[in-house]
Amino acid sequence: MIKAVFPHKDLLGIRNLGRDEIVMILDTAESFKEVSRRPIKKVPSLRGQTVINLFYEPSTRTRTSFEIAAKRLSADAVNISASTSSVVKGETLADTVRNLQAMAPDIVVMRHACAGAAEYVAGIIAAGVVNAGDGAHEHPTQALLDLLTMRQHCGRLEGLRLAIIGDIAHSRVARSNLWACRTLGIHARVCGPPSMMPRDLADFGEVEVCSRPEDAIATADVIMMLRLQLERQGTGLFPSLEEYARRYGLNRERLARAPADAVVMHPGPMNRGVEIAGDVADGRRAVILDQVENGVAVRMAILYLLGGSRS
Amino acid sequence: MIKAVFPHKDLLGIRNLGRDEIVMILDTAESFKEVSRRPIKKVPSLRGQTVINLFYEPSTRTRTSFEIAAKRLSADAVNISASTSSVVKGETLADTVRNLQAMAPDIVVMRHACAGAAEYVAGIIAAGVVNAGDGAHEHPTQALLDLLTMRQHCGRLEGLRLAIIGDIAHSRVARSNLWACRTLGIHARVCGPPSMMPRDLADFGEVEVCSRPEDAIATADVIMMLRLQLERQGTGLFPSLEEYARRYGLNRERLARAPADAVVMHPGPMNRGVEIAGDVADGRRAVILDQVENGVAVRMAILYLLGGSRS
Amino acid sequence: MIKAVFPHKDLLGIRNLGRDEIVMILDTAESFKEVSRRPIKKVPSLRGQTVINLFYEPSTRTRTSFEIAAKRLSADAVNISASTSSVVKGETLADTVRNLQAMAPDIVVMRHACAGAAEYVAGIIAAGVVNAGDGAHEHPTQALLDLLTMRQHCGRLEGLRLAIIGDIAHSRVARSNLWACRTLGIHARVCGPPSMMPRDLADFGEVEVCSRPEDAIATADVIMMLRLQLERQGTGLFPSLEEYARRYGLNRERLARAPADAVVMHPGPMNRGVEIAGDVADGRRAVILDQVENGVAVRMAILYLLGGSRS
Repeated sequence: MIKAVFPHKDLLGIRNLGRDEIVMILDTAESFKEVSRRPIKKVPSLRGQTVINLFYEPSTRTRTSFEIAAKRLSADAVNISASTSSVVKGETLADTVRNLQAMAPDIVVMRHACAGAAEYVAGIIAAGVVNAGDGAHEHPTQALLDLLTMRQHCGRLEGLRLAIIGDIAHSRVARSNLWACRTLGIHARVCGPPSMMPRDLADFGEVEVCSRPEDAIATADVIMMLRLQLERQGTGLFPSLEEYARRYGLNRERLARAPADAVVMHPGPMNRGVEIAGDVADGRRAVILDQVENGVAVRMAILYLLGGSRS
Repeated sequence: MIKAVFPHKDLLGIRNLGRDEIVMILDTAESFKEVSRRPIKKVPSLRGQTVINLFYEPSTRTRTSFEIAAKRLSADAVNISASTSSVVKGETLADTVRNLQAMAPDIVVMRHACAGAAEYVAGIIAAGVVNAGDGAHEHPTQALLDLLTMRQHCGRLEGLRLAIIGDIAHSRVARSNLWACRTLGIHARVCGPPSMMPRDLADFGEVEVCSRPEDAIATADVIMMLRLQLERQGTGLFPSLEEYARRYGLNRERLARAPADAVVMHPGPMNRGVEIAGDVADGRRAVILDQVENGVAVRMAILYLLGGSRS
Repeated sequence: MIKAVFPHKDLLGIRNLGRDEIVMILDTAESFKEVSRRPIKKVPSLRGQTVINLFYEPSTRTRTSFEIAAKRLSADAVNISASTSSVVKGETLADTVRNLQAMAPDIVVMRHACAGAAEYVAGIIAAGVVNAGDGAHEHPTQALLDLLTMRQHCGRLEGLRLAIIGDIAHSRVARSNLWACRTLGIHARVCGPPSMMPRDLADFGEVEVCSRPEDAIATADVIMMLRLQLERQGTGLFPSLEEYARRYGLNRERLARAPADAVVMHPGPMNRGVEIAGDVADGRRAVILDQVENGVAVRMAILYLLGGSRS
């Protein structure tokens, strides 16, 4: 494989990526999908490179996806989770990552509850930084795996119609996808309780706000259901789980209002019976597990493009 | 080594294994023991394969044993423990493992508090599933390492006399061993407080119940002491630790009532002074550490037979 | 690289190392520093060897440093942390490590809250044991990385003047460094609240006690600031953080009293504004991140010398 040159040290968000850069990542990911289907799922691309997964928030799927991606590239993967880390000892984030940098990692994959944390760290350390989620700000590898899944199922990205339904305001997944929509010319509609609509929606370009999910999905090629953060119950953001499910959840009846070939996405983990009905999640239009499979490929691509470009 | 063909996708329990299958696993394990005694303890058998250790209950020895087994086979091992996983976010077990499957693991090693969890998962995912303990149901690799240890010390399995002493009803170790006894023609005697005897003992074939440990061990080739779950204190299952130790614990005096060449086993971790006296645990008749050593070999064999057969 | 022969099975402390042994470790570490600067940061020295990191106390930097060191030597690294281990089940430390030994590790790296824990374990198991901190007793790899850093910045060790400031009595870092001073002919001065001075200081040879940090650093080549254990607040060992910072903390004004070429060290994690001012920590005389970089090299050296000598 001839190595494309990715012109950034880090992957911090979708917002500042150009169209060609996104396409380069997706094309690279496409070529890595095949590796995970071989009997011997391993390429030597990042042999002798060190990837640190620094997670300040608990995560199974994202951390595991990055760890598997790193190992299939032959990198050494080291996991650090905040619960067992010296952050409890009162060290600053800057000192923690400067210390890690002194151990000469090639890439630091980082999840943190604060928006901007990854960018802050990227400015401090020489290693490439991959934002694996920073507060309600960005989650770029999630958006990239979403885009790869859309492209595979719809054959293109430009001109697609995407409906995102749920808590847009607090969702880094939604935000990263909306930046991608702006850059790639995807028509986005969002829908959710008014209390869950962001105030800065205009920043993302021409995003249509629909008050009813039926309107959001009516012409959609792709329906993206967001996870309802159950810990938000009782905060006044929405009346009840039942009410939320009835008003915004994607069940069979509601899905019937969308075009017949629209696909259903969800970033996981799913609350079955809340934002998505079980039969829709398991139905033939759901591409949720394709998203997960593409997640490994996208993360291999990112690690390869950032790590490889530095060796 | 010529590869034996193991005719199952998963290892869920001992109950459904045939005699020849058990012997095949033990023979394969025997051949792997030597690997852990080399200066370079590594063979390339599972290079480029991914083994996920998915543990919903805390474990040191079993998880470590599987992880070391995977790495000595050159597999990529990924650990997931429930305490840091998205199970806390309310995702169903089925969704969690479908997600893991989408990352293309070859084998998922799984421990879960619910009986039947591994079998349930095996029916959902394409990867091979190894049951590393499911509630009080089965713990097949423990029984297999017990069998390997018995065979090495007694020279055979058929016709052996095994005494299992302790909380039979709540022990997945006991249950897996009792299934093995039925299949392999090992004579089993069990002993413990009446409250700790299972109601379905007849299912395991001809198991003798002894009310006094002296009777259980009188003609035993192998004495297997079970760990007393200390958290069961005060539940009425047994009067007190002291009483339990005096009535059922294996001390030197009691061991003297067994045949002179009987060996003593324990699945660990041991409560010294409760179910087993310290001098017995450390005595020359204890083969408890042989069990642990055989544990790595048996797990290498299982990963090899399940993983290798799929590549 | 021609292999030096390290005449010990374990690294338990600095106290019992001879001058030549310390120098051998530092020289070996020097040769490994270059590995972490390559694009492919990996040598095959410990391929097929198993290194277990057994941490009974939380740690980010030390565990990560050992894990990275092991992986760059191509060893298989297995992490066990007490919070998820069977120690919660009441197993003795001796039984836990005998069990690990039965899995045939080559080296066990161990941190434990009890002084003497590593030595106790080393007497039980055949694997090499590396003490990664045992209570307030020793932390030999920290002292070795400190020595390597001093030697690099000062050009020599014998005759150097080292000031250690802080809670000497409770610091395994200070104790390991003081043993090194005695063996290598480094002149040590210590300073801290009287409640934090050890009673057995005479054991370390000629250590000068200064009541004021200005006196301790007046002629120092190296100033080592110790971390103040914040959990000691309110125990009467020192009046308040502010008072401690004012009396003993290293700020710019105080540092100006030291020789112009004195370097500043800290074992981390730092309490900025307590034992060390932020501008000193970030200043050009601080060699704190060099210490961390040297930490990986020193740990590679130790694993190599202990592991390699046994294969």
